[in-house]
Amino acid sequence: MTYCVGLDLKDGLVLLSDTRTNAGVDNISTFSKMHVFEKKGDRVIVLLGAGNLAATQAVVNLLNEGIEIDGRVQTLASVKSMFRAAELVGEAIRRVYQIDGKSMEDHHVSFDVSFLLGGQIKKGKLSLFEIYSAGNFIEATQDTPYLQIGEHKYGKPILDRTARYETELYDGVKLALVSMDSTLRSNLSVGLPIDLLVYRRDSLEIELKRRITESDGYFKMLRERWSGALREAYRTIPQPDWAGDSAKS
Amino acid sequence: MTYCVGLDLKDGLVLLSDTRTNAGVDNISTFSKMHVFEKKGDRVIVLLGAGNLAATQAVVNLLNEGIEIDGRVQTLASVKSMFRAAELVGEAIRRVYQIDGKSMEDHHVSFDVSFLLGGQIKKGKLSLFEIYSAGNFIEATQDTPYLQIGEHKYGKPILDRTARYETELYDGVKLALVSMDSTLRSNLSVGLPIDLLVYRRDSLEIELKRRITESDGYFKMLRERWSGALREAYRTIPQPDWAGDSAKS
Repeated sequence: MTYCVGLDLKDGLVLLSDTRTNAGVDNISTFSKMHVFEKKGDRVIVLLGAGNLAATQAVVNLLNEGIEIDGRVQTLASVKSMFRAAELVGEAIRRVYQIDGKSMEDHHVSFDVSFLLGGQIKKGKLSLFEIYSAGNFIEATQDTPYLQIGEHKYGKPILDRTARYETELYDGVKLALVSMDSTLRSNLSVGLPIDLLVYRRDSLEIELKRRITESDGYFKMLRERWSGALREAYRTIPQPDWAGDSAKS
Repeated sequence: MTYCVGLDLKDGLVLLSDTRTNAGVDNISTFSKMHVFEKKGDRVIVLLGAGNLAATQAVVNLLNEGIEIDGRVQTLASVKSMFRAAELVGEAIRRVYQIDGKSMEDHHVSFDVSFLLGGQIKKGKLSLFEIYSAGNFIEATQDTPYLQIGEHKYGKPILDRTARYETELYDGVKLALVSMDSTLRSNLSVGLPIDLLVYRRDSLEIELKRRITESDGYFKMLRERWSGALREAYRTIPQPDWAGDSAKS
């Protein structure tokens, strides 16, 4: 599995993905799931993939080579808006499905892919999309400013509680890292290192791209502080007074 | 769905289950998933069920009526040990599967049930089991003193971080409630009220059984304190110093 999370905030985007890929528990590898298309001053588009690795890689390769639609070859470098970019990724998924889907099903491998697509093109709208196996997609909104793909449940409670559209960009980084930490601790199929990208609204260039490893001092500190704070929070909540109600001892 | 969690601690058992049952999103009901067999001074056995409601109810009914094995009718009131109790629940699951399984599959309904079984019989071992659809089971140990069934992922991180065999019984209650709260917030298919049971080792009677509703003062306080503590913990972690590294602004 994989865990990827994206935050679409007032000040920009925070995107975070793990790098673990496994085919069974005895075949575990590291693959970046974050693909960046940047042309400074023109566009920053970031694609995070989850699901079958062959299928997600095929989608990315097809997007890099370009997809012919009505006689014109389209790429993420040529599309005019983030909405069109999401449509193009959806089309790439459908084409890979046409080629590989039937054969994968014959071998009982489900064609299960999903993507987060975030970015901005020129003065256009900053957007974050989640694109499904069928090529259709949804967009993050101010009400729900985060999207997740892959092994999303462990890291969802903290997002539900604290992710707000107004969250400051580097508070969003903390939040994404805490969400990832919860997932890393509870699920073996999600693993370090993790890839982080921060994009500031209207800047049209990447503000921060960083691979975070086991030895990263900040991430270590965040994990320890968070763990300690949770234990402390749980410790300081008083015990229920029901204990006496029906205690027989 | 359902969420049930059990803690097998040094001082006894904590068992907690929600009550939401749904067949589609427009058919939601309240059913207790906690079934208690108590004979003071002799045994306390508690069964929590998740999965297809018809199947889990059939298992409980079969256990109440008794199961004939080698010419003798066995019930949870007659078994000699918790291990035998778990075997009996497993056998009940298999018999329900024999009757309903094929027909359910014909209607594309999966025979998907699981149970937590906790308790103690006389001076025997206090045990907590998780019993699968196939009727086989695992037991909680001092290394991993908790078991979950149903929608378990949202509430797992806090258990992974803080559940220890030495955890005091009513700290275990807090922990189970926090785990339930995380699940309630993130998943619509798990809902209040919730049923709590506390059993103290070697007491051979229920110490506390309580239905917790929306208006329960303690649970309200716990939810607010926990939410506040999480937000505060997240707020007080410093922002990463990488922001400066490659910031271009």
